[in-house]
Amino acid sequence: MYRYATNNNNNKGEIVMPIDSFSQFKEHSVAEFFKKNKQMLGFSGKVRSLTTIVHEFTSNSLDAGEEVGILPEIFIQLEEEGDDKYKIAVQDNCGGIPEKYLGKALGQLLAGTKFHRYVQQRGQQGIGASGCIMYSQITTGKPAWVRSGYKNVIIECNIGINVSKNTPVITNLTKTMGEFSGLRIEAHLGDVRYENSGYGVYEYLKQTVLANPHAQIEFIAPDAQRYMFPRAVDVVPKPPIETKPHILGITANDLVEFSRRIKESRISAFLAEEFSRVSSNKVKELQELLPDIDFSQPPTSLNWDTAEKLIKAVHTLKWIAPATDILRPIGKENVARALQNILNPQFIAQSDRSPQIFHGGIPYQVEVAIAYGFTNGAHNRIMRFANRVPLLFDAGACGLTEAVKTIEWKRYRIDDFENMPIAVFVNFVSVHVPYTSAGKQAIALEEEIIAEVRNAIMEAARPVKGYLNGIVHLQERSSRRKVFLRYVAQLAGDMSELADMPKKKEAIKKGLVDLVEHRVGLIEEAEDAEAETAKEANAANGAVANGQENGNGKKDFEEKGE
Amino acid sequence: MYRYATNNNNNKGEIVMPIDSFSQFKEHSVAEFFKKNKQMLGFSGKVRSLTTIVHEFTSNSLDAGEEVGILPEIFIQLEEEGDDKYKIAVQDNCGGIPEKYLGKALGQLLAGTKFHRYVQQRGQQGIGASGCIMYSQITTGKPAWVRSGYKNVIIECNIGINVSKNTPVITNLTKTMGEFSGLRIEAHLGDVRYENSGYGVYEYLKQTVLANPHAQIEFIAPDAQRYMFPRAVDVVPKPPIETKPHILGITANDLVEFSRRIKESRISAFLAEEFSRVSSNKVKELQELLPDIDFSQPPTSLNWDTAEKLIKAVHTLKWIAPATDILRPIGKENVARALQNILNPQFIAQSDRSPQIFHGGIPYQVEVAIAYGFTNGAHNRIMRFANRVPLLFDAGACGLTEAVKTIEWKRYRIDDFENMPIAVFVNFVSVHVPYTSAGKQAIALEEEIIAEVRNAIMEAARPVKGYLNGIVHLQERSSRRKVFLRYVAQLAGDMSELADMPKKKEAIKKGLVDLVEHRVGLIEEAEDAEAETAKEANAANGAVANGQENGNGKKDFEEKGE
Repeated sequence: MYRYATNNNNNKGEIVMPIDSFSQFKEHSVAEFFKKNKQMLGFSGKVRSLTTIVHEFTSNSLDAGEEVGILPEIFIQLEEEGDDKYKIAVQDNCGGIPEKYLGKALGQLLAGTKFHRYVQQRGQQGIGASGCIMYSQITTGKPAWVRSGYKNVIIECNIGINVSKNTPVITNLTKTMGEFSGLRIEAHLGDVRYENSGYGVYEYLKQTVLANPHAQIEFIAPDAQRYMFPRAVDVVPKPPIETKPHILGITANDLVEFSRRIKESRISAFLAEEFSRVSSNKVKELQELLPDIDFSQPPTSLNWDTAEKLIKAVHTLKWIAPATDILRPIGKENVARALQNILNPQFIAQSDRSPQIFHGGIPYQVEVAIAYGFTNGAHNRIMRFANRVPLLFDAGACGLTEAVKTIEWKRYRIDDFENMPIAVFVNFVSVHVPYTSAGKQAIALEEEIIAEVRNAIMEAARPVKGYLNGIVHLQERSSRRKVFLRYVAQLAGDMSELADMPKKKEAIKKGLVDLVEHRVGLIEEAEDAEAETAKEANAANGAVANGQENGNGKKDFEEKGE
Repeated sequence: MYRYATNNNNNKGEIVMPIDSFSQFKEHSVAEFFKKNKQMLGFSGKVRSLTTIVHEFTSNSLDAGEEVGILPEIFIQLEEEGDDKYKIAVQDNCGGIPEKYLGKALGQLLAGTKFHRYVQQRGQQGIGASGCIMYSQITTGKPAWVRSGYKNVIIECNIGINVSKNTPVITNLTKTMGEFSGLRIEAHLGDVRYENSGYGVYEYLKQTVLANPHAQIEFIAPDAQRYMFPRAVDVVPKPPIETKPHILGITANDLVEFSRRIKESRISAFLAEEFSRVSSNKVKELQELLPDIDFSQPPTSLNWDTAEKLIKAVHTLKWIAPATDILRPIGKENVARALQNILNPQFIAQSDRSPQIFHGGIPYQVEVAIAYGFTNGAHNRIMRFANRVPLLFDAGACGLTEAVKTIEWKRYRIDDFENMPIAVFVNFVSVHVPYTSAGKQAIALEEEIIAEVRNAIMEAARPVKGYLNGIVHLQERSSRRKVFLRYVAQLAGDMSELADMPKKKEAIKKGLVDLVEHRVGLIEEAEDAEAETAKEANAANGAVANGQENGNGKKDFEEKGE
């Protein structure tokens, strides 16, 4: 079939070679998509690919531990099997997966318990582990071997994936009864490499323990070296709580969609039941604002226009902030202890931020700690975490990095951020982390989020400034005192000679020292008082400056006790 | 149902709250995935979201134009419809889409003609346009309106998407006969913003025209301002050619997979027919290396082990490099002309690289141009393109940026890259661009690719160094000549007076000038000869230094004429 171009702009009516590309039209499975674009799952580069696999399996174990309320014990072993080939074994004690879901959880992309729930977890897409099993399969041709102990039933089987259909392939399944409660995955990996670098498995696990002090991790490296990361805290973190979406973050589209799949028979009940922080009083306020909408109608009557009006009205009211108890920050004490262990810094300052929400009704919270003055570890470290998971890659594209980099550090006496011994720890905690890609290593540059992270950093930076001011101040006082005292001995000798009382020399010296100490004390008191006044003035100014910096996107919430 | 923790490490046998998360196990459509993670498609931030939409529709039009061999005329109009709401219309003259595929092409993710073919196109995932239609729908509740003229049949209809099923929803379809050959899409957009910034629609189109001088684009901005970008070249680019994967980039997994879906009855024919650059002589060489494998067996007999042995043997042989004529670089002349138009620099240098392949048998080619010395436009610009598509976002995560940033610019007399008037243009041309995410704005940090891009940059940087050396050199000579000549007038006067021949003053002066010019000429000749020798020595050294830098991953290809 030839095709003539009819457009008179083309090569003067020449015959154009036929390419009827539509004969090639096809549909593809999501597994095919991620197989071809495996770099989107974090499989780019041999070192990163291996870290990605450890990261996915470890995160799943930690999530499972929290769900069932167990202190996780995770065992990871890597054995070399050839050029860029390794065998990985990951085992946990975190409750296992029942037979019914085992195949889909590990051999099907976009299947799982996490994607659709408003609950804070490390995994959130139902892609991670299955993606690793797929990577194992396409680089070695072998399925993974799995042992799952769930409620005293132990399943052992091989799990692979039918890529073109995105379905699990289970073979050699056996079922026994036994004590093991947890999951063990063994997989062969090609095109990966173990390396002891800042992007390698060891660094990943070290940072994981930092953010998960309740976990115990044992790691056996390919050279058979055994690393034990014992737990630092013996308390199981509170299990994550599933929440409803906060009304302020809901879009008209969400409202229409939700209205089609719920059980309530009236719009009023729908609003009160399905969304967080919608009391019956609030529903009444909305009704008053929207007399044209009949709230006693079934929710299915909501069309786009009504939904849009409703959302507009929602944004004119004040709402209680999202509940704090659904988010699971690491906690100031745990963060401080962890930083102390790793960096042993002279000074640690931390933010103390309350939860916020971003679009989609999604609550989140930011934990920031700044460590100053250490000789261990590299300088200028930005340690990024999302729901306690270390983010080692894609720093350049990450909103957390962006927030740190755009701070005017000079305002906090950090005159040379790149070269001073300062580390910034940021943990982003949310029921949904807006990653830039399925590889989950960078948080999207969302304005609201960056603004909040910057606020948290500035909050933590202020005490650092105070500390650095203090160091300078103490140095000044100490040198002044030295100047005074340098002459005391000489003067005491001269005076005792002049008065012809050599035996009194020590007494004179003591008198002079006391005098100097008294005088210097008075000077320092005056200075302190002055500083205090200046500090108060600064605090007032600081609040203003701060307010200017925070300008964008902050929502006002009502006080909790409505 | 309560569950008791059996692990004795947990809170001393306390009852743990039950969360049987497995009751929540669900499967999801890829549309649901990208709806929830729309930032992965480039929908993060209002300005970027609008640019993403223009980018997706424009890229599709340019691809269609190349497929059918038409000089594209693209019309884009934006109209404001409310707060952060716009209507977009995009129309092209590029052949349209037949009725059978219209819905799936625009209302279903991962469906299309591009995903599975080895052909260089801007789109490659079958996600872009459908993702935009989905974004339009979830932010405004409205379907898109489409007019497609394909072979004299004009279809008009509304297209939406059923997100939970990832299927198109077509309504109000009409069919008429007519002259229109192309596609018009009109969509309502919410949560987007038009801005005249470096990330906005105008900048995107400007750079698109730079890399697509054969396209004519007309843009009407929301303020009704009309921008016309006329075409600079009247030649339709050669249509893209579909190719077979190059054997060197094939993995064992590919081999097994391909062997299951082809028609050849013997392994020998399978290898020769399905892969690029596999001659019957090469098949014989492979057979000699692998006497244990029977090449007359059907390809379906290939198992993983055989496939792995085959691939190992493939890597011990030399192969002809991939065909150059399947890639469509912009071309040195077009790039130079475009840079001249936009920046009007003093000097342009370009690389001249032959195609390479990276894993997956994927041919690619890198075009680099460096422009030096301009006052138009910003300094220190890194202009990134992939298959002629401008990449405006995610610069920090992009391999192209990484390559530019890791060049030792000082070696090329660029002592201060950040502040000198230098722009680096990089176009990455391939049948498959390894983007970091479905948003297609950054190329993965693949070692082989970065090494090749760096080589291309260094190649273009050498003439820049020569140019800068020349400037410095000319400045030095010019100032030396001035020093000599400064005294000539005075000396000529003095000499004519001394000799008492005032009328001869001008003659003496001329004689002196000639003398100086002659002497200076001799000095400069000597310098040039010395420089030439030094240059040759440098070239030898340079090649060595270069070889050290290039170390990783370069394949040796046979000469073309096997």
